[in-house]
Amino acid sequence: MSVLDLTESVTVKNTIGGFVSEKKKLALIVHSGTLDKLYCAFILGSTATSMGWEAHLYFTFWGLHAIVKGAMEKAGLPSDYKKMDKQMRERLKQMKYPTPYELLQRMKTSGLLKIYACTPTMEMFAIKREDLIPEVDELAGAATFLAVAADAEVTLLV
Amino acid sequence: MSVLDLTESVTVKNTIGGFVSEKKKLALIVHSGTLDKLYCAFILGSTATSMGWEAHLYFTFWGLHAIVKGAMEKAGLPSDYKKMDKQMRERLKQMKYPTPYELLQRMKTSGLLKIYACTPTMEMFAIKREDLIPEVDELAGAATFLAVAADAEVTLLV
Amino acid sequence: MSVLDLTESVTVKNTIGGFVSEKKKLALIVHSGTLDKLYCAFILGSTATSMGWEAHLYFTFWGLHAIVKGAMEKAGLPSDYKKMDKQMRERLKQMKYPTPYELLQRMKTSGLLKIYACTPTMEMFAIKREDLIPEVDELAGAATFLAVAADAEVTLLV
Repeated sequence: MSVLDLTESVTVKNTIGGFVSEKKKLALIVHSGTLDKLYCAFILGSTATSMGWEAHLYFTFWGLHAIVKGAMEKAGLPSDYKKMDKQMRERLKQMKYPTPYELLQRMKTSGLLKIYACTPTMEMFAIKREDLIPEVDELAGAATFLAVAADAEVTLLV
Repeated sequence: MSVLDLTESVTVKNTIGGFVSEKKKLALIVHSGTLDKLYCAFILGSTATSMGWEAHLYFTFWGLHAIVKGAMEKAGLPSDYKKMDKQMRERLKQMKYPTPYELLQRMKTSGLLKIYACTPTMEMFAIKREDLIPEVDELAGAATFLAVAADAEVTLLV
Repeated sequence: MSVLDLTESVTVKNTIGGFVSEKKKLALIVHSGTLDKLYCAFILGSTATSMGWEAHLYFTFWGLHAIVKGAMEKAGLPSDYKKMDKQMRERLKQMKYPTPYELLQRMKTSGLLKIYACTPTMEMFAIKREDLIPEVDELAGAATFLAVAADAEVTLLV
């Protein structure tokens, strides 16, 4: 495999709905799949969409594993923080706080969320399109993300 | 709790001292609380302020736990790097390197540092204002951070 | 050691080849040294250079440890994902996927990659220039990175 294979042809896709948007944009690489990082990404994302920004979430590595059907519901804290897992879950239930998947679905209903699944990760871990949650908009490589991020107000890797 | 509760009303606060600043800005989300990540954030922050930039540090999750009074002094390396903990501490002492809290306090004296504590995390972990170090400037949600970051030259999640 | 020692004198170095470039720029802080994070950084980097962007990679902490000669070849997954290590390696071999070091070398041949080694980390861990891979372009502090990043289209911490 040559390094060029890593890069899909670059078509500018920094739009939602096919035309160039003048909305502000948040572009996140979601590399992690633990509960603390998913909340971090989705609270940023849902805050952005509630402010009228577009949110572009690019799921790679353990983040991609988290958007395999049924996986997000099982996400927990990383082992270094395992002892706080139970306390945090009970508190979230008490607060009637939305789960990560509920946050993702609410963002989706705003029409301002676009979800990308990282194709190199899918190939590395033999994950297929039909394994992923239906909210995924596009299978894409890093070039798509960079084109979106180049035009974003805020870009972060979570 | 509805997702709208996650988002405080958006008042533009990308200023220090109440007027719009023309200074360059570094905006960091400090999500981690381990010694390696705190040093990373605070060396970036203190370098920025010594260059005359504003540094906006938004503490969330394990980063927020690190600004609970007395916690930063106990920060160590993540378990994957535990075996290097002793070597690193001895070396830092030898070098008379400032501790993370000393770095934070020096940044603060520049008048260019603004510290935000993440309100959703405070609620999730039942942490109160009076539990936090006195250097905290503002309790804020993600909308405040996004408004600051949209206007920043460099934005990173540590 | 005073906090000012952390900051080298700020000379603007946001160029490759000595003149101000009009190319787009990706600026990455590589803080991690695990296989999943190195791939993330280097796939982003090699995609950027194949798009004609400059890629500026600043290696600090465990990322710096990964550019010690011979270290990158031994990089594995973090302990929380250790059980997937074998599967991932076999799959990458099957795919004839380039190793992280091969990706770095290919980026280097593009003439668009610049590698910085973090001087405070080198001092903290007593790592010398001659310990590092020969592809390193510059030993530098955070001020150099901030000057580059202030001018970059996309900035991330991996």
